[in-house]
This record gives sequence, structure tokens and C-alpha cells, in this order.
Amino acid sequence: MTDAALAALSALLGDRLTTARGPRAEHAQSETHVAGSLPDAVAFPETTDEVAAILRIAQAHGLPVIGWGAGTSLEGHALALKGGVTVDFARMARVLEVRPEDMLARVQPGITREALNTELRATGLFFPVDPGANASLGGMAATRASGTTAVRYGTMRDAVLGLEVVLADGTVIRTGTAAPKSSAGYDLTALMVGSEGTLGLITELTLRLHGQPEAISAASCGFADMAAAVDCVIETIQSGIPMARIEFLDPAAVAACNAHSGQSLPETPLLLVEFHSSPAGVAEQAERFGEIAASHGSTGFRWADRPEDRSALWRMRHAAYPACLASRPGATAVVTDVCVPISRLAQAVEETRADIAASPIPGPILGHVGDGNFHAILLIEKDNPTEAAEASRLAARMAERALRLGGTVTGEHGIGIGKLGYMQAEHGAGWAVMGALKRALDPQDILNPGKLVPPQ
Amino acid sequence: MTDAALAALSALLGDRLTTARGPRAEHAQSETHVAGSLPDAVAFPETTDEVAAILRIAQAHGLPVIGWGAGTSLEGHALALKGGVTVDFARMARVLEVRPEDMLARVQPGITREALNTELRATGLFFPVDPGANASLGGMAATRASGTTAVRYGTMRDAVLGLEVVLADGTVIRTGTAAPKSSAGYDLTALMVGSEGTLGLITELTLRLHGQPEAISAASCGFADMAAAVDCVIETIQSGIPMARIEFLDPAAVAACNAHSGQSLPETPLLLVEFHSSPAGVAEQAERFGEIAASHGSTGFRWADRPEDRSALWRMRHAAYPACLASRPGATAVVTDVCVPISRLAQAVEETRADIAASPIPGPILGHVGDGNFHAILLIEKDNPTEAAEASRLAARMAERALRLGGTVTGEHGIGIGKLGYMQAEHGAGWAVMGALKRALDPQDILNPGKLVPPQ
Repeated sequence: MTDAALAALSALLGDRLTTARGPRAEHAQSETHVAGSLPDAVAFPETTDEVAAILRIAQAHGLPVIGWGAGTSLEGHALALKGGVTVDFARMARVLEVRPEDMLARVQPGITREALNTELRATGLFFPVDPGANASLGGMAATRASGTTAVRYGTMRDAVLGLEVVLADGTVIRTGTAAPKSSAGYDLTALMVGSEGTLGLITELTLRLHGQPEAISAASCGFADMAAAVDCVIETIQSGIPMARIEFLDPAAVAACNAHSGQSLPETPLLLVEFHSSPAGVAEQAERFGEIAASHGSTGFRWADRPEDRSALWRMRHAAYPACLASRPGATAVVTDVCVPISRLAQAVEETRADIAASPIPGPILGHVGDGNFHAILLIEKDNPTEAAEASRLAARMAERALRLGGTVTGEHGIGIGKLGYMQAEHGAGWAVMGALKRALDPQDILNPGKLVPPQ
Repeated sequence: MTDAALAALSALLGDRLTTARGPRAEHAQSETHVAGSLPDAVAFPETTDEVAAILRIAQAHGLPVIGWGAGTSLEGHALALKGGVTVDFARMARVLEVRPEDMLARVQPGITREALNTELRATGLFFPVDPGANASLGGMAATRASGTTAVRYGTMRDAVLGLEVVLADGTVIRTGTAAPKSSAGYDLTALMVGSEGTLGLITELTLRLHGQPEAISAASCGFADMAAAVDCVIETIQSGIPMARIEFLDPAAVAACNAHSGQSLPETPLLLVEFHSSPAGVAEQAERFGEIAASHGSTGFRWADRPEDRSALWRMRHAAYPACLASRPGATAVVTDVCVPISRLAQAVEETRADIAASPIPGPILGHVGDGNFHAILLIEKDNPTEAAEASRLAARMAERALRLGGTVTGEHGIGIGKLGYMQAEHGAGWAVMGALKRALDPQDILNPGKLVPPQ
């Protein structure tokens, strides 16, 4: 960063701009194996106007600008590959408005999903998208995140009704409206959701909320093999049972969770399911699911009807990532994320398991099987280049397999740095189209450069 | 069109290119008041390669290209404002593949929704988006159409999983995958859905299907006023009852439908509702809705449980447009289409009714109130400029009111020609962003010129 750029940013933000090594290093970290990369400075804006001013300065000085939410991304999305200023939204983390009749909330990008749901508790509404990590809403939108409840409530693509976005030149646009739908022109909201900070910085989100379900029930059940579990999932979804969650764990993942959370679930291919409805609706859905599961030979059916049992079940599921990490002391993880058509899911998981079984690396598998989405948590020794290379090889085979089976190299974690090498294979000529859109909105390539689109 | 362009297109398509006045005039018509506009030629391609070749010729000769589905758009979307070649997809109207396990179908753009559902009948699946008209799927995607079932199953934004699109330069891209979700880069599918043929021509769609409901029930019920009906809708949706349809008719619309369809529904503000679930689920949902409706003073509750009664009810609703037309013999219609936050719906409808009551033009109102979307069918004498001006004034006031109340000038009919004048007011700086995206993908402005984006 030039002295002139630094002076302009400092004049704007005072002590809310820092070039100290500590904060810069904090914003150069990644949750996973992706190597860090230091920004030149970190900014903590408090208003949209300040974000716009930062971008005008950045444009004038050719300075890279990288958005930062809660730092929970798994593919290095928010790393400053080319230096510049990281814009941390920690001071823009408020709920601006809740409109219960319209079932929506306007929030700032830095608020986390747990903080939002805490604020919503008294309204009878909740925000359903649940990627596990306590991510920021701005980051979830930028990544097009989803998680355990997408099978029922959709992903961030469905959850975001509108955005305020600051573009590369400092222009502030508002996309979408507070109406539930619109046919008025290009869907700029959908273009920004999943754009990973390369087209603009999100400074406000209008989010769809849902009514807190009157009744909830959850259960776990084991299957003889992956194919039986997947056939159960397919029949359940086709039958129209509005599942709130259908999660899969392979035996290695169940073992890791049992060890970490003190549970004693059967160490077989396992489904964890949840139902949201009226009391009668939940009872009927659970009964119908139970019949379908039984017809596919399910075993070890356990209901978690009491809130504390249900909480324990999902706490265990949400802790699956640390549980897997703990299953190999001192390990770090390459967290994979592929999504395939459900008809190909059993094949995709079985082939992945066989690959992992034939490698020296452990890799428990878990996934949001209602969406065809699964992760292998490839556990490698830190600073062991042989294992890192082997994990990369396994991850590449998973991505290529997903594409071969008609799926995508990332169901919910996004591109960041880790998946950039697959964009051409997944999108073909469409990747160049993404590049053309990027050049149209950010001709200087100052927004999160080095990410998502082809090298300019 | 130059002789050279014509010769190139004729060499490509033979007798599937016509410059005869009859077919050109057929492709210059509009369902509503929008004035027609003749293309120079009409093409009937049979393959994606032919569409790509048409676009390469068009690019070489600077020729406008306009896509055409079933001709049911209401705002003149497919009119050839600047001549050129209209590409009619009548010969690309097949179902290419149905994958029941993945609950999806690949179709060509010319197939209509009714033809698709006829082909799906034996699979246990159906395609839910229902705009009333028997529109083509390509046109529905290009318009981001929705209709009576959007409150449950979403709009074309939700229904389209992926597209094959031919861009202005003849490049063919495939957007999306057969997996249910993805975080792999910009959402080109969503960008194309609703782009009204200005960014590319859709040559294939991958559509999400749903299981045919095991049980269906429908009902109608009257309310003392619009506010009571809307409060009933809000409470119903907040309570989580998964309504399949919630339609509203004002007394004038009910009267027109009664006269046209031989029904005898109460001529009060009326809701028509439908439930899709298991038999027990439908019974419970209907009972809970009935309680909510009663608490808002509903009267004249009528159940339509038998398939023939249900069919009659929805046939009547789908015939509301011709019924309204028939209520004023010889009239043509200005069909309005606004969508507001549900909390503002009663106010928006009441103010619109008061406006219409104070004008000399009749204008029955009906809408998809679960989405906050409604239409006034403004009935004007043909070739009466005074009435046409009055209808324009009323329509403008509706659009401005929708924006003032936080909504959109079009919930589902799109921009076409009729709504272009409101784009700046609705999107502000975002409209220029749409223009920048258009220039990036179609720098020569050959795709449906004169529509959707600011004049180049």
C-alpha cells in the first residue's frame, strides 16, 4: 500500500484502521489447510458511507479490498492474496429492523447467525440457514452457504431477499425489495450472493425468516450400507415428507462423534433426521419416515423427542468437525465439499470411501444427504508434505468424480482459493462469462483479487 | 434486414425461415394493450447448434434477435421493436429426460407447462409453477414467471436448476448442474432467469419437479373486507401451514367469475385456498386454516374436496382474465401486476380499489396474496384514447404505490415494454449496473434490443 493510500484511509477511519502486525495476522488466518496471506491494513468501518469511501480511496490507489466476516470460511475466501485492505465488518453487526408480519429482518453483514437468532427468539420467528459454524450473515451470503436445514428451508440463495452493496467505484446499490418476489429485471441479489466479495461489499441484508416450528422431533437410525441409507432418503423426499434435516454420517464419523461427545450411536452408516410441524404433523411425518426407513432395513432407531436429547444430537452433529480433528491428535484437515444428484450419491460416497480406505489418510465422511452434498474430512499431519499431497490427490478425485456424476465441486463452501482450479472444468465457457461480468463491474480488479474468476 | 443476412439465415434454415407477412404478423401480437411490432423474419430452429448459428449470423450483420415461446407474455416482451429475426422455439419443444430419483426434468424451451405435466403424469411427479396461461417453459424462465402456486413451490427462480444458453456471439454455455445446490461461482442461472432474452437465448432447461401430492383439498371463503382477508393470510403463513395456493378476488372479480363460469360464490372479498399433503395432513391444515379464517370473521366457507369441484374452482380462477374481459363486452385490458410486502397488501389493494372506483374504468382485482402480488384488470374500450390514458394513469399510480410501500412494479409479468419506465425508480443505481452487465455480454445490443436495460 502506498503512503498516500494509507494516509487517505487513516484520515477516514482514524484508529479504526490498523497496520499493526497482530490484527493483520488475525486476518490472514484460515480455518483449514489453506495458507495465510497478510493484508497491508485492516479497516473497521461503522457505516455504509465509510465502506463507500474506502472503495473510492481503493479505486483511486489501485488498492485490493477484501471483505471479512467471522473468518469461518473453509477455502481461504477472505485471504489478502495481493495485500491491500481487509474490511472487517465487526462494527457493522446490528439487527436494523425485524418485520414479523413480513417475516423478514434487515441486518448488517457482521452479525452472526447465532446472534441473529438470539435477537429473534421473542418474535416467534427464526433464521434457518445453519452451516454449523457461527458465521456472519454477510459472509454466508457472499459464500452462498447452506448446511443442515437447506433440504427444507433452502440455502442463502433462497434466504436473501435483498442486499445493499457497495460496488468497486463506491456506488451504493440496493437489490431486491421487501416484497416476496419480483420480475423486475436482472436478479442482482442472486448475482451478488455467492460472488465472494469479487463484485461488491455487502453492507446490509434483507433476510427471509420462518415461523419457529410448533413441534420438533428428531431421530437417528442406522443402515446396513450407504445404498440403503440413500434409497431411504430418496423415497422420503419423493414421498413429500417435508424433512427439516437429513444428515448422513459414515461409520468413521459416527465413531469420532461418539468418542468426542460421549454418545453411543451405532457405528454404521447413520441418518440423523428432524421434523418441524404441528404436533400432529410431526407425529405423522415421523411415522411415515419410520416406515420408509424400516423398509430399507434401518436398525437402531432412536427418537430424540425431548428438547435436551435433540440438543445433544445436533450439538454432536455440529461438533463433528472438531470430533474428526480430535480423532487424529495434532492433525489438521482438508475439508472437502462436493454435491451430486441424489441418484448418484451412494456411488459418489462409496467410491470416495474406497479411495480413502486405500490411502494412508483417515477421512470420515458426513453430509447433507437430502441435498446430495457431502464432506470427507481428510485428516493430515501438520507440516507433512507427503500427507498433504495425498489429501490433495483424494480431494481432486472427489471433485472430478462429482463433475463426472453431474454435480458440482462445491455444494456450500464456495471457491475461495481451494477450488479455483476446478472452475474451468465445472463451468466451461461459463467461466469466461463470469470473468466478463467481473470486468464490467470491477475493471481495475480491486475487489478480492485472485479469487473466483479467471486471471484478468 | 440486409439481403446478405437474409441469405445467410435462409441457407442455414431453408423453409424454416420465413419472411411472409402472415407469420411475421403472428409474431408481432401481444395478449394485451401493448402495440405490435413486426420482425423482418421468423426462424424455427430445431437444435442448439442452429440457434448458435443464427446468433453468429446476427452478430456478423448487427441483426436484432428476439426469442419467442408461446406468445403469452403480457408486457410485449417478445415484440421486435427494431425489426430483426424472431426465433420461435415451437420446434424445440421436447422433454429430453426425466430423472424421477433426482426429481428433475431436462426440457427444450418451447414446451408448454401443460404439455410437460401431461408427459409427467405417469411418473408421480409434477412441475408446479402455474402462471395461468399455458406458457412455454423458456418464456416462463425468461420472464421469471410464477402464479398461483408460488406461495408453496416458489417461482421460476426456484424451479430452474440449470440452463443451456446461447450468448450473443453464438457461444453455448451450460449453467448450474443436476445437483440440488452449488456454491461454485456467480449464479449464471439466476442471472439468465428473468433476463427476458436480453443476455442470451435459452435452449434447454433443467427443472426441479415435485411429488404429486397424495391428497388435495381446496376451499373458498368470504371476508367482510380486504383487511380481514389479508390478516387471515398473514396469520396463516406465520403459523407455518404450508399453503399450496392462497388467491384473492375482490367483489368485482368474483362477480365477473360467477357470470362467466356459472358459479355462485359470495360477491365479497374472497380467498381461494388449496392444501397439498397426506390425507391426514390436508385434514389438519384445512382445520387449522378454517379456525384462523373464522377468527377473522370469514363467511360462506365452501369446501371443494371432490376432484371435480376443485377443478371447477381453479378453472374458474384461471378463467378470471377472460371473465373480466367478458364483463365489459368489446373491451381490451391493461393488466397490472404489482407486488408489495404482505404487511402493506391491504393498504395497497384498498388504495387501488378507491382509485379505480373514482375513475370511469372498471378494474376487477385479483391476486396471489400469499406473495403480496395482485393485478387490477383495467378494462378499456378498444381505440378509446381517453380510456387508455386513464388506464395508464391508474397503472402508474399502482406502480408508484408499490414502490412507496417497499414493493416492486412487477411481481411476475416482467418488464417488457410496459414497465421499462419504472426501472430507474425501482432500481436506482442498480439499473445502470444491469446496463453494464448487458454491455459485457452483448456489446452490439442484438439480443431483444430496446428491452429491460437503459438505452445503450
